[in-house]
Formats: sequence, C-alpha cells, structure tokens
Amino acid sequence: MEEVRNKFVAIKGHINGAPSESDFEIKTETISLPAIRNTSKEYYVIVKNLYVSVDPYQLNRMKAQSSSQSAISFAAPIIPGHAIDTYGVGRVVESGGRSDLAKDELVAGLLTWGEYTVIAAEEEGIRLLNKLDADEALPLSHYVGTLGFSGLTAYGGFYKVCKPKKGESVFVSAASGSVGSLVGQYAKLFGCHVVGCAGTQQKVDLLKEKLGFDDAFNYKDETDLNSALKRYFPKGIDMYFDNVGGEMLEAAIGNMNTFGRVAVCGAISEYTGGGRGASLDMLDVVYKRITIQGFLAADYLNCYSDFISTTTDHLRNGKMHALSDIYHGVETVPLAFIGLFRGHNIGKMIVQIAN
Amino acid sequence: MEEVRNKFVAIKGHINGAPSESDFEIKTETISLPAIRNTSKEYYVIVKNLYVSVDPYQLNRMKAQSSSQSAISFAAPIIPGHAIDTYGVGRVVESGGRSDLAKDELVAGLLTWGEYTVIAAEEEGIRLLNKLDADEALPLSHYVGTLGFSGLTAYGGFYKVCKPKKGESVFVSAASGSVGSLVGQYAKLFGCHVVGCAGTQQKVDLLKEKLGFDDAFNYKDETDLNSALKRYFPKGIDMYFDNVGGEMLEAAIGNMNTFGRVAVCGAISEYTGGGRGASLDMLDVVYKRITIQGFLAADYLNCYSDFISTTTDHLRNGKMHALSDIYHGVETVPLAFIGLFRGHNIGKMIVQIAN
Repeated sequence: MEEVRNKFVAIKGHINGAPSESDFEIKTETISLPAIRNTSKEYYVIVKNLYVSVDPYQLNRMKAQSSSQSAISFAAPIIPGHAIDTYGVGRVVESGGRSDLAKDELVAGLLTWGEYTVIAAEEEGIRLLNKLDADEALPLSHYVGTLGFSGLTAYGGFYKVCKPKKGESVFVSAASGSVGSLVGQYAKLFGCHVVGCAGTQQKVDLLKEKLGFDDAFNYKDETDLNSALKRYFPKGIDMYFDNVGGEMLEAAIGNMNTFGRVAVCGAISEYTGGGRGASLDMLDVVYKRITIQGFLAADYLNCYSDFISTTTDHLRNGKMHALSDIYHGVETVPLAFIGLFRGHNIGKMIVQIAN
Repeated sequence: MEEVRNKFVAIKGHINGAPSESDFEIKTETISLPAIRNTSKEYYVIVKNLYVSVDPYQLNRMKAQSSSQSAISFAAPIIPGHAIDTYGVGRVVESGGRSDLAKDELVAGLLTWGEYTVIAAEEEGIRLLNKLDADEALPLSHYVGTLGFSGLTAYGGFYKVCKPKKGESVFVSAASGSVGSLVGQYAKLFGCHVVGCAGTQQKVDLLKEKLGFDDAFNYKDETDLNSALKRYFPKGIDMYFDNVGGEMLEAAIGNMNTFGRVAVCGAISEYTGGGRGASLDMLDVVYKRITIQGFLAADYLNCYSDFISTTTDHLRNGKMHALSDIYHGVETVPLAFIGLFRGHNIGKMIVQIAN
C-alpha cells in the first residue's frame, strides 16, 4: 500500500466581486493507493491530473448563491474547503473497476484543480469522464480547451445558436479569449465577415494578423461603443457572439440587422459585480426581430464527434490556431484564475499540473 | 363628377411621451370621384373605411425618429399633418384599374385613420390591401383585430415563436389586450397552463371567467413582481408572451425554467418613456438557456390561411371569444388611441368609421 499526497485548490469562503489571491488556499490530503473500499460495491476512480482548465464561469459558482441559477446543476455551488471540479486531461491511476478505463490511459472530463482527482462510486453517474483518444500530432493541452469544452462552446454556439449563412457579419467580444478566438476562426472558415474586440493592442494585432479576423478593435480605446460598432459594421451586425454582456451587448443590439442573432455565451462584465447588467432596447428587439439565446456547451454534446473531427483537421492542416496561456503547477491555479478577470490571458487559460 | 369630403386624423407634431388629445387634429380634404388621373398610367384606389385598428405601436411611429428602428419599414415615421395608415376593413369605392378589386367589395389591409383611404399608384406595391372573404356569421369588426393583424400576431407569436409543448406553462402580460387575450386562448386550447396579468380587477375576472385562463392577477396589486410570479408559477415559466417589457420582463426571466422562451411582441411600458427598459440578468439567460425573440406579425404571413381557418372555426363554435372595444366615428380615434396607454381598453381597440 502506497500513500500519495494530493495538493488541491479550495476557496476559503464565498467570493463576491473580483477574486484575489487571498480568497484561495492550497490544501493537502493523503490518498491511499489502492484506494480503500468501504464495501465490496464502493470503489474509486483515481486520476492523476495533467492539464486543467481555468474558466471565468467558475466565479459564479464561488459566489454566495442566492439567485435562481443555484438550482441548475451546471452552476452547482463550489463549497469552501472542498476540491473544485473543472474540465481537464489526466492519466488513470486506478480504474476503480470501470471496464471502460484502464490504468495509465489518458482521460478527459471533469477533474479537479488539484494533483489528483478522486471520484467516488456514487459520483460516477454524474461525472463526465471518458477515455481520450488524443491525436499525437497535437499537444495534449489542446484537449483541455480548443478540443475540450471551450471548443465545443465555440462550435455549438456558432453553428447551432448563431445559425450562420455565408457572407453574413459576425461580431465577437472577448475575441482573443478561449472561446472567442475559436468562434472567429470558425466564422472565417465558414465564409463570414468577422470583427472582434479585445482589451489590448497586442490582442487586437493577434486577431488580425494571426487569426485572420477581418478587423478588430480595442474596446478600451472607444468612448462610445455604439459608434465604434457603427464604424466597424457600416452594414450592420448579423450575429453577435457575446462573451461579455453589459454595455457591449446593448451597443451590439443597437447595431444589429433585421433577424440578427445573439448567442449569449457569457457575461464576464457581470460576473464580478463590477459592470452593470445590460439594459436592452426591447423595441429594437421587436422591430429588428432579434433573437437572443443563452446556451451552454453541454447542450451540444450531440455534435461532439463532428466538432472533434472538424477541429482536429483544421488544427493539423494549420487552418486554425489554438491559443493557450499555460501556467505550471497546481499552486498557480489561483493566479491563473484571477488573471482571467484582469484580461491577462490570450486564448485558453490552462494550468499544467504534471508532465 | 362628384366631390366627397374626407375627414382624417393627423398628428400636429412628433409625440414624445404619453399621447394626449392636443397632439392630434382632425383634418378635411376633398376627393374627386372618379379620381383625377395625372397620366394614363397613374390611378388611384379609393376605399371607404368601415372599421380601423388602433394600436400601441403607432406611438413609436409618432416619435421624433432617432433610434435605429426608423430605418425599418414597419416602423416608418408618421408625418405630422399627413394621413396615418393602419390596418382596417373597408369597401372599394374605386378599384383604380386593379383587376383583383371591384367596386363595393370588402377589403382588408392598410387603410387610414380617416373616412376614406386614397392609394396612389406608386404606393400599390408596398400597400397591403386584399379582397376580404368575410364569414357572414361573424361581425365584420372581428376582421380588424382577432382575424386581422392582432390575431396573426398572437397566432404566429404563440405557435411559431414560443414553440409550445402540451402541458407547458405560459405567462401572458397585458393579457386582456388585443393580442394577449388571444394568446391565452390559443394556449389553453393547445393544452398549456396559462396565467395572465392585467391592470384592473375587472380584467382579471374576465380572464379567469370568460377566457378560461387558469389564473390571473392584477400587477398593480403586487409590490414585488418576482415573488408574484413565484406564487403563480411554483414550477416556473416555460414561455412568456411579453407585451410590456420593463420590470415584468425581468421578473419573468427570473422565474423561467431551463430552455424557456420569451416571445417579445411589444414593450408598451417603454413606448411612452414613462417606464424603464428591461435590465436583464444575462447569467440567468445563459444558465437557463433562455431564448428571447422579437417578432412581428408580418413575419408569419405564410401561416395566414391556417390562422384564419383555425380561428374562424374556434370563434364560430364558441371555443374562442373575440373581445372588442369599439369607438364610433373618425373623431374618436385620438381618444381611443390615448386610452390604450391608460389601460382603458379590454380586447381590441377599434373605431367604427361607417356602417
């Protein structure tokens, strides 16, 4: 019997507002290998985490829950002191009797912000965890974001929510982020006119020069978002892929064309309580027959295999670029997470836990 | 050659805020019959108006136009001093050479708030005007609202925008209005659980006792719309047919179920500038995957014949009730219109111009 130490990240208490380092702690627990089974029917799957995802939506789960979304499983509250689940890639240490998993195999799914993920039997049914058939020509880290839930979010949101037609115009906010950078690339490959916004000149340059956006702008340089969008979309916006909410959503609605569509992926400006909610002009929504639709990647699991094959092809032949911002070591998770709300990341924020 | 006097309603200037009688004037013009043609190619259709529709959306067209909807034909600005177009039923005085119209025939379409509608040749292409095959068992006034654009709005909005499933719950605001009263009845006939809100106890009673709503409440009696909706929808709202916008929309979003749908038909609370815009919780929209869709009846002209046959059947066999609030004489149009914004009407506001 062997004992391993598992370091993991927890919140000290609920977080309201923007997160800071002092909100987090690194805890240590001891895991016995092979895992002790309480009865013959109970077992554990243990995964050694390799790469884990760091996403803005986690902040909503860290808040003291009072709003209606607390009832929704995708927004299940994170409990202070406990391990925090997240999408990631790891290697099986113990298969826990699951016939679909074998020791040392790669898996992708719901892991934790920690060195190991321990999954008890009673969690099995609800915990997404599958064998990963990784393409060896691609970095393993791609499977956390571009070929993980960020990618599926971009794919489902663009193809299924926006329902694009060739030649239409697309506006993407937080366009250099994990999801936005992929939406813009899918949209260009599909034949749309794509303009993105981001918060630094470096990001704007990247969108135009590396990711092939038709145009891009720094929203911090604009005093009037409505005029900015008029300038970048003289013929109006057909689709808006919204990652930020707030004032940008209002301005996008004001510049939308008839039968425009808004895919509401996130509202990062509202997560920290720092920004204000979007006050929408409902007359515009009526007269322009705008559709505003919230969605989650999980709704589009039925197009997962299409998404993986299409995206893998594009990545292999260089038609798409996967942007990653990789931190190293479980201790860096809080820093990486905090950075999301300060606009530090370019592309997918990932922490590499082990080699 | 005969001369007839045509009295019609015009606005004196653009209206901002709630309308009042002093915003309107009754003007008189003289029409020569047969209409004088300028060239052999120009002709006029002349219709004697019988019943004309009075609708809240007209107020948006009376404003000094600055917002983006001014570019949209359905919201074309109304010009001070000029005749104001509206949906209505009339009788052909001169067919103007149109082979599909004959003298003395009934027509339905875009008429005016006046005694006569004079349509010049150059308007032909854009002006909706069709022969009306009215069911003689039904009052002609039904064709202005329930079997006109209000009905099509309710029908298209409920069946095509809400996409109902049997057993789902529907919330309807302004439920005793021209559109809301029909939505609630379609929804009940379809097999939904329907709750409506209105602004007087008399209207609430009517919804429950005459129109068969499962429940109804007076929103003016509620201090907290969010709690009110929780009480009336303990299992949440699947569809919200929104006629009012503002705070009611916010409360409805807060009480929606996963995959809920909002059909945005109007935002009367925002028309007069008296109410405030809806400040939506976009996190709710994302996590509950809510779809908010603006629409206009004109988008559903393809289901016009289904709508007419279904609704005519329901009206004839007493399964649906057409509520009308009928004023008499062209001079009463301003009063009827102003009443819409004071909650005076029950059902469709109509002015009978002639017998």
